[in-house]
Parts: sequence; structure tokens; C-alpha cells
Amino acid sequence: MYGYMGKLLRINLSSRNVYEEEIREDALRKFIGGVGLAAKIIYNEVNPEKSAFDPENKIVFMTGPLTGTLVPCTGRYVVCAKSPLTDAWGEAHSGGFWACELKRTGYDGLIIEGRSDKPAYVIVDGGEVRIEDASYMWGLGCLETEDLLRKDLGGDFKIACIGPAGERLVRFAAIINDGGRAAGRCGMGAVMGSKNLKAIAVRGSREIPMKDPDRIRAVLKRIYPQIMSFPTTQIYASYGTSGEFLSFHEYGDVPIRNFTLGDWDGIERISGEVYNKLMVKARRSCWNCPIACWRYVEVNEGPYAGLILKRGPEYETLAALGSLLLNDKLDVIVKANYLCNHYGLDTISTGVCIAFAIECYERGLITRQEAGGDLKWGDPEIILGLIESIGERKGLGSILAEGVKRASERIGGGSEKLAMHVKGLEIPMHDPRAFKGMGLQYAVSNRGACHLQGLFLRVEQGERVTDLKIYERLDRFEVKGKGKILAIMQNWHEVLESLVICKFLGIPPGHIPGLYTLVTGIPTSLEDLLEAGERIYNIKRMFNVKCGIRRRDDTLPYRIMHEGLKDGGTLGNIVSPKDLDVMLDEYYAARGWDENGIPRNETLKRLNLIENSV
Amino acid sequence: MYGYMGKLLRINLSSRNVYEEEIREDALRKFIGGVGLAAKIIYNEVNPEKSAFDPENKIVFMTGPLTGTLVPCTGRYVVCAKSPLTDAWGEAHSGGFWACELKRTGYDGLIIEGRSDKPAYVIVDGGEVRIEDASYMWGLGCLETEDLLRKDLGGDFKIACIGPAGERLVRFAAIINDGGRAAGRCGMGAVMGSKNLKAIAVRGSREIPMKDPDRIRAVLKRIYPQIMSFPTTQIYASYGTSGEFLSFHEYGDVPIRNFTLGDWDGIERISGEVYNKLMVKARRSCWNCPIACWRYVEVNEGPYAGLILKRGPEYETLAALGSLLLNDKLDVIVKANYLCNHYGLDTISTGVCIAFAIECYERGLITRQEAGGDLKWGDPEIILGLIESIGERKGLGSILAEGVKRASERIGGGSEKLAMHVKGLEIPMHDPRAFKGMGLQYAVSNRGACHLQGLFLRVEQGERVTDLKIYERLDRFEVKGKGKILAIMQNWHEVLESLVICKFLGIPPGHIPGLYTLVTGIPTSLEDLLEAGERIYNIKRMFNVKCGIRRRDDTLPYRIMHEGLKDGGTLGNIVSPKDLDVMLDEYYAARGWDENGIPRNETLKRLNLIENSV
Repeated sequence: MYGYMGKLLRINLSSRNVYEEEIREDALRKFIGGVGLAAKIIYNEVNPEKSAFDPENKIVFMTGPLTGTLVPCTGRYVVCAKSPLTDAWGEAHSGGFWACELKRTGYDGLIIEGRSDKPAYVIVDGGEVRIEDASYMWGLGCLETEDLLRKDLGGDFKIACIGPAGERLVRFAAIINDGGRAAGRCGMGAVMGSKNLKAIAVRGSREIPMKDPDRIRAVLKRIYPQIMSFPTTQIYASYGTSGEFLSFHEYGDVPIRNFTLGDWDGIERISGEVYNKLMVKARRSCWNCPIACWRYVEVNEGPYAGLILKRGPEYETLAALGSLLLNDKLDVIVKANYLCNHYGLDTISTGVCIAFAIECYERGLITRQEAGGDLKWGDPEIILGLIESIGERKGLGSILAEGVKRASERIGGGSEKLAMHVKGLEIPMHDPRAFKGMGLQYAVSNRGACHLQGLFLRVEQGERVTDLKIYERLDRFEVKGKGKILAIMQNWHEVLESLVICKFLGIPPGHIPGLYTLVTGIPTSLEDLLEAGERIYNIKRMFNVKCGIRRRDDTLPYRIMHEGLKDGGTLGNIVSPKDLDVMLDEYYAARGWDENGIPRNETLKRLNLIENSV
Repeated sequence: MYGYMGKLLRINLSSRNVYEEEIREDALRKFIGGVGLAAKIIYNEVNPEKSAFDPENKIVFMTGPLTGTLVPCTGRYVVCAKSPLTDAWGEAHSGGFWACELKRTGYDGLIIEGRSDKPAYVIVDGGEVRIEDASYMWGLGCLETEDLLRKDLGGDFKIACIGPAGERLVRFAAIINDGGRAAGRCGMGAVMGSKNLKAIAVRGSREIPMKDPDRIRAVLKRIYPQIMSFPTTQIYASYGTSGEFLSFHEYGDVPIRNFTLGDWDGIERISGEVYNKLMVKARRSCWNCPIACWRYVEVNEGPYAGLILKRGPEYETLAALGSLLLNDKLDVIVKANYLCNHYGLDTISTGVCIAFAIECYERGLITRQEAGGDLKWGDPEIILGLIESIGERKGLGSILAEGVKRASERIGGGSEKLAMHVKGLEIPMHDPRAFKGMGLQYAVSNRGACHLQGLFLRVEQGERVTDLKIYERLDRFEVKGKGKILAIMQNWHEVLESLVICKFLGIPPGHIPGLYTLVTGIPTSLEDLLEAGERIYNIKRMFNVKCGIRRRDDTLPYRIMHEGLKDGGTLGNIVSPKDLDVMLDEYYAARGWDENGIPRNETLKRLNLIENSV
């Protein structure tokens, strides 16, 4: 009906029923697609009182109106559900080719409900949908699963799947697609596991609908050089995301030794420059992406010589499995990344849990026997062994598999002060003590500590997105003026993730409404899109409010709020409780929320969200 | 008296008199230092009716209040005189170490007057100044001169000198310092040559005065990561300025075959990536510069194997001696760059003159005999041979040595349409058909076609300098809205070149007034500095008005205004005479100039420039 985006597939694994649904036009206008549409569905359909592993939880895979079009960097999907880490809103994102392939089947998204009584996988082959037995591949690693399925079904299927970690309900299990791309955060792989769903294989042949492809081509030709010369594009093209490693370190932004050190000479040895020189064999890209930030990696020497990762570690992984653990051995990072891909684990959460375990051991909060060995910083055997234990839920690994929040509650003894998370989601590899506004972003983000939705550190590094009327220069250590701008940035990122378009695409926001209209035929404006972004952000918050999230949960790890670093680029700063209060007050006011972080009725009315059913 | 900046040295080569002069405090407040102070001196003292080679012309070397301080990227000097290329305002800039060394002598600038009756060089050794006989080094190349002088005087002298081209009054002769850094543009080397001045050697031991070094350190520590992660900093650090070669080419910005082609596969072979991989041995930096955009280059194989350039070609040179000549051989570019350094030639003007010669030959406007051979695009012998002919003023080279404007007037036959210059200065390696506002910048710049003062293509690439209240997104092919913003950018660049600070230093303008005050103790604001910038821009224009410059001279080469390119990123655009008129009208209005390009009295009054003596 609405050519460019119209059909969803609803699959109930309990009843094995499959439904085709049309997306209402007003839903698209209000929620765009992608993460917006998924939020609407989850808000309306998921019972916030049930556990994330309850069959009543639903997991939604969604593409957007721009997915697979001529617009570059549109090869991504979003996956949303109630999160087993945060017991609240959960979402993850991944690139590669799976999203376009799904869209080519004619379905723009999948809603998976219920729980299969035995291991199952889903095939969407054009208009044909089947639920098949996956018992024979249960227990296999992600890459093995993908290889096996492709062998069984044919090479032109694109596959997203879980590994042993997802099967075993490791709360930070990831979904892996296209040979190593991960929808990593919030334990979406564990939700798949709780539904006994091993994999989703898709194949399609439909042409992606676009209203005016010729004019899209003309516009892109005109702005293409601007995209290619966008600063991060050049860095990511040359080095991948690790190209910013040393520059982040200058800011004191790179976490070291579970966020206790501000400087460390090992940084040089795992920097993007060294990594690219020693390990990287080639650049690779997602579907229709001119940036190509992936790195095809091969270990040349040492115990892992010959190990190949088609999707090698990017910045977050290099830091989480490197500096965070005081590990300066690139080959060990690559091997650890490989194991995370095998088991299907989020590398950020994995790194944070291991760092937590080592520090607990060092402080005598867990015994040698409980630890299963002598946990030392930077020790390859310890790191790789703990990943295996987590993936297989053995020994200490079975505690860490619960996520750092639950693990610290279990271990007790003050270990909560060493647990680096917000709302249960392990914090990413940007230290908020280097960028206080980034601290606010971590504190309030709907999915817990999120570095992506808002990318506020870009603003604190000096980027001013004038199309969004962000003109101010913000000092990274100040607190004033940040709440208001963060809200704008978050609204914009909701737009990007609803369209769905990669946030690495370096074009000014002002270009996006025109491209949207040329794809869909629907007139829009930056203001309209930003209002939709604000609506989407608020509906997620409303889901969280129903899950019990309040101001007390919009907080930061103890260490960030109380322990300054003695050296490095943070210059000793902390994000004090008072800092956070000042920022939260300003932020809630800008958002139109009350002092407890609950959206006011007039805000919901303004955004047409006041009805329970939206 | 005014601690941080106070003394000038006036050297008359005719009378051999040397005077020490104090800089009046109001001059510093009105003109800052650097190019501003030089402009004031030349405006007041140089007779615009005399030729650039007349002994009455003066050549002023100037540092600024920030030179040699803790503020990074402050190792540069400016050199100004009436230009033998444009017969109007001339200036050139260079990095390295010479500027700091001069400042350490206790003198902030040199004013050289008159003409020596025989080859001479100047020594400033602390407070001691001598004029020595340079007959024994007359005829030597720049690098040889520097080596010889350093051997004679001692290794700790810093030397700026001219080569055979400057001696022979090649109108685009450069001044070379520190082993290959060039004050290239506007023929400042020829002005030195006209004064029989071969070199200036400086050595000093004075500490550079700063009011509050501790607070400068503290501010810098805070913003240092922002400097290092500034987009172009990262690119220049990784690749040098050639890192943007391919990205510029996407825009259709890189000139090919004397501006007649929009695309060429040879670009790949001389790109920054290939250049850095094949030739670059190390990074080098100017004094106190964390960016280090220089490249230390060695040719590995072929006829020039073993050739080392401590200051290897940067973007402008790679394009001017590469793509502009359809030359895809990196080693030939390095060799050509070496020859330009040897003779002391501006690489941009050299490339433009050679391209002009080859096209004239191709079109039959010069004969084989006149050409001294078969002039073919991309031919190494032709390129290297013509550089030698220019440097030695032999054959066709003696005509080209007059600059492309005079050469085309001499050759005639319509060759004026092939001569790429504005006001006599050969145009740099950014094609205004890819960025129309850059065309306006070329057209109006005081020194002729200048790519640096304003760096307007950055704005047209999407950079918005919000500290300067530049919020608009400009389409690179539009003409509206550009004049006003260009004026702001030019004013700001006058500030940078008066302070003197490298325009590659990536910090927002808002930081500069504070640093200025911490160095000098003089309170200032962004508004004050911008007003001084506007004043400086206008006094240069007033000098030009006295030299006869009017609206008719604010124009562009015929090719840019009438010939669109069939392929590449310019998409066939031209900067038509009408385009230019629209931009000029807006620009003059923004500047407060009349329709003929002459500053209105009220403008001069507003800027305190109405008195003849300023």
C-alpha cells in the first residue's frame, strides 16, 4: 500500500502461526520505521512486568524506509525487546547485508513471539516462511552455524544467529550476522535463546522501492564528495574506528584497568596505527557503504598465527578486550574477539565483566578457588579462559554471565563499587570523566549506558551540528548547557535509527529530509523528523517508566562519580553526584519530564503519545 | 617596552645603515603583528608607483605576538613586499624554525630597504647585525647556500635564502628556509634578488616573553586532545596534506591537464595513500607543532633512486607538478620539487607556467624551435627541463620566468585564455568550478589567486565556524550568501596571520583571544580581533587601490568562467561572469566597498584607517 515500507511478518514460535501485517500509514508518519516502529510495537504489546526470558517477551527485527536504497550506509537493522540485562527497554543494531536481504523478501520487519518447544530456526525465502528444527545445530558457534546453514540452504541466504552464549541465556549474548557483525548490546541474543530460536535465514529478490531514483542519484552525485571528505569518514576509511584510539586516549577517554588508570604505555601497542600495520589485510564494507570501516584481519605470528577474522576488532573491542584489561597484545585481542564471535557475546560487556572479576580477585572479594585460578591483569590465558567460561556458563563464568550488575550483587562485599554499568548495561569504552555530557548520556539513555544514541562526545570534542541549531562551544568538563543539547542529539539519533541509516554517514542532517522524500514520496522536513525522533525517544522512556525506571536509575557507576584519575587527559575530573543532578535537572526540563524523570502529560499530548495505544 | 613584542630591525642595503625601532603600542593594538604590522609598514612606506624591483620597494619579514610561544603551531613567519607578479600587494608565508630563531634575537621583524651594490647576506646574531659579502655563494642553489652558510657560521644559525631563480629575478622565485620550507608565493624571492640579498641568517638566545606561561600550559593541557582530534589534524598527521588528494578529486577540485580534464586515472597513482606508502620515510614538524604535516621523502628506485627531500612535496606540489601536467610519476614529482627547491621557485606558479607552455605548444601558439623541443604532457624530460630553463632563464624558460600573465601577453594569439592566474598570481590547485565561493576568494584576494586567506572551500565542504557565527550550510555550486561569509573568514585569517599562527591548528577561534591575553597581558575579545582582521584586510586593499586595482581586476581566468568540464565532480559547472558579478556585489556590500571595489570613506573611518598615516 505505502510502496516503500509496508509489511511486517509476525511469527509465533509457540503456536507456529505466521501472520502478515500491514503497517498503518499513520504509524509510519509518527514512528518512521526502524527503531521507532519497533518501540511502538513493544510499548503496545510487551508486558513490562514479565521477565525478559518469558515467552511473552517479543523480539522485533526492523529495517527502515531507507534500508537497501541508493542512499549510502543503509545496510543496517535494529533488534529490540525487553532486555535481560536492564529488565527494561533493550535494543541493538548491526550492519552487514542481512537487513537488505530481509527487505528484499518484501517484509520490512519481523516480530517474533512465544517460545519454540525445541530448538528452531526461521527461514524467510521471498514470501515463503518456514519454522524448522534447529536441534542439529544447537551448541554450534555462530560462524559454524552460519556456514552450516548456508551449506544446507544455499549460499545466497543471509543469516543472523546466536551461539552457545545465547542458548545458555548469558545475559549479554549477542546476535551475530554476516560472518561476524554483531547486534551486541542488551542481550538480544539471550532473548533469542530464551525463545529457542537459533537463527533467522533470509533471502529475497524484490527490488527495493524508491519513488524517484534518478533524482536520488543526482543529489548523491552532488554531495558524494562531501560524504567522502567528512572527517570521520576519512579516518574510518583509512584505519577503521580504531583510527581514533590515540586521539581518544589524549582526552583520557580510553578506559584502562577497569577505569582506574588514566595513562598506560600499552596504548601505543594496540593503537589503530599499529593494529592496521600489523594485522589488517584489507578493508571491507557493509552493503552500499563507501566508508568501509571494517577490517579484515589475520594474525601473522605467535600462538594464534593464521587466525583470520573477516570482521576484525573495532575500537570498542580493542579497548574492552585490550586496555580495559591491561592487555597490550593485539593477537590476544583478536583471539578474544574470535571467541566472543564464536560464543555470540557482546565484546563490551564481556570485557567489563572480566575486568570486574580481575579487580574483585585482586581485592580479595573472590577467592582463588572461586576464580578458578590466579586472575591477573593482561594475562592471555585468564582472558581467553574467562570468555570460554562465560560462553559455557562454567564456574566463575556462570556468575559473570549474569552481567556485571547481577554478578556484583551476588559477590557483594562492596564489589558494587567496581561494577561499571548503568541500569545493568555494561558501560562502553568512553570514560565520562573525560566528557561530562557523555556521562549524562550514559545516565539517561533508554537502553542503559549507551555511547551511540546522541554521540554526545562529538559535541564535546567541538563538532557543532548547525542544521540542528547546535552552535554553542561546550567545555568537556562543564555541566551547564549540556542537557538541552543532548536531548536534541538523541532525538536526531532516533531519526537515524528509524530511517535506518548508519550514524557514520557524514552528511549534514539538512540533507536527510529531501532524501527521505525522494525515497518515499512523502513530504517532510527536519522539524517533522526531529519531532518524530522526540516521540520515539519518549515512547521508549514510557516503556521504561512502566518497567519501574525513575530518576534514581539515571545514574553512573560509583567510580565515575567519586574516583578521579591521577594522570591522563581527564585531569582528575569526576562526574560528581552534584554534577549529575545539575545536568539531570536541565535535561528533564528540556525533555518536558517531571523531576522524577517521568514525561509530563502535556509532553505526551504534544507528541500525540497520550493514548495508551499509539 | 611592550614585553611580548617590541622591536623591529630596519636594514638599508644601499646605505648599509641598520636601525633598531620600537613598535608603537597602538600599532600593535590596531594591527596585532605579523602580516598586519607588515601591511601597515608597506602601506605607509612603499611607493605604489615604483616597480617591485625598484630599490624603493621594501621587503618585510615579520613574526607575531604568538611566535615561538607555548601555543602550538607558532613557528611561522610572513614576508611582504610589492609583488613583481601582481605589481600590487604581495605576501608569502613559511614554517620551520627560522621565525622562532629570529624572535629569539630580540627582533620581531626585519624591514629590508634599498639595494646592495653587490651580492650580500645579512646576519642577525643576537643583538649584533652585519651585512656581509655573498659573492662567493651567488649562483648556488638554496640547499647548498644553507649548507655552506651553516658551515661558515655554525650549525645553530637558521637561514632563509634565495637560489638562482631569485637572483635572476624570476618573478615567482621563492624564499627557502630550513632545508626546504618555502615562502613561495608572489615572487618574494625575486624581490630579495632585486636587492642583491642572498640570505638572512639568524641566531638568538633570548627567551620568548609570555605573561602567564603556567596558565597557558593549563589551558593547552585542557584543549590539547581537541587539537589532536581535529579532523584535518588527524589527516595531516597520518598522511600530510596529500591525505586529502582523493577527497578533493571527488569534488572535481584537483586541476588536471591545465584545468581541462575533470577525471584522470593517474590521480590514484599520485594520491596521498600511494605517496606515503612508496616514498615517505618519516614525519617531520615545524617548531612546536604536534601535527607534523611534513613528509621526509626518499625515492627508492628508478633514475632518481636515493634522492632525499627532507621536506617532501605536499598537496599543492603533488598537484601542480603532477596532475596539472598529466604526470603520474611520483618520482618525477619529487625530482621536480627538488629542482624547484634548488632554484628557489614557487612550485604552484612553476607548474601553472609549464602547463601553460605545453598547452600553447599543443595548440601551435609556440613553435617547436621556440619551445626547444616537443612539449608533451606528462613527459619527465620536458617537465624537468622546463624547470631548469626557468631557473636559469634560458630559452622558453626566460619567457615563462615572467609569470604566466606576462608570458601569455608576450606569446599572444589567444594564449591569454590558457593562462591560469588572477591579478598575475598563478592559481593554486583548487578548481573554483568545484567551489564557486572559492572562485570569489581567488578573485578578490589581495595577493591575487590565494587559496589560503579564507580557506573558503572548507565552508563549502560543510565546515561551519560557529564561533564566527557561520551557521549556514552553503551549496558549493550556489553563489548567494557567499560574499558575506567569505569576508568574515578572510578577516579571521588576517588575525591568524598577524598573531602569527598556522591555519592548520585545529582549535575553535573562541580559544584564541584568551591565549593571546595570556601571552601578552593585553585583554582582548574575538570581536576586537576580528575588527583588527578587517582593518588589516582593508589596508592591504587600500595599498592595492593605490596600485590601480579595481573591480575589473577582481576576476577569474577565462577557462574558469567559460569552459565547463565534461566529467568529474564539478558536474560541468563554471563560475560564469554573471555568477561572479552576483558574488562581487554581495561581497563589496558586506565589505563596505563601493561598486568599483574601493573601500568607502565610512568604512575606513569605522576601522580607524581614514588617516593616510595609520
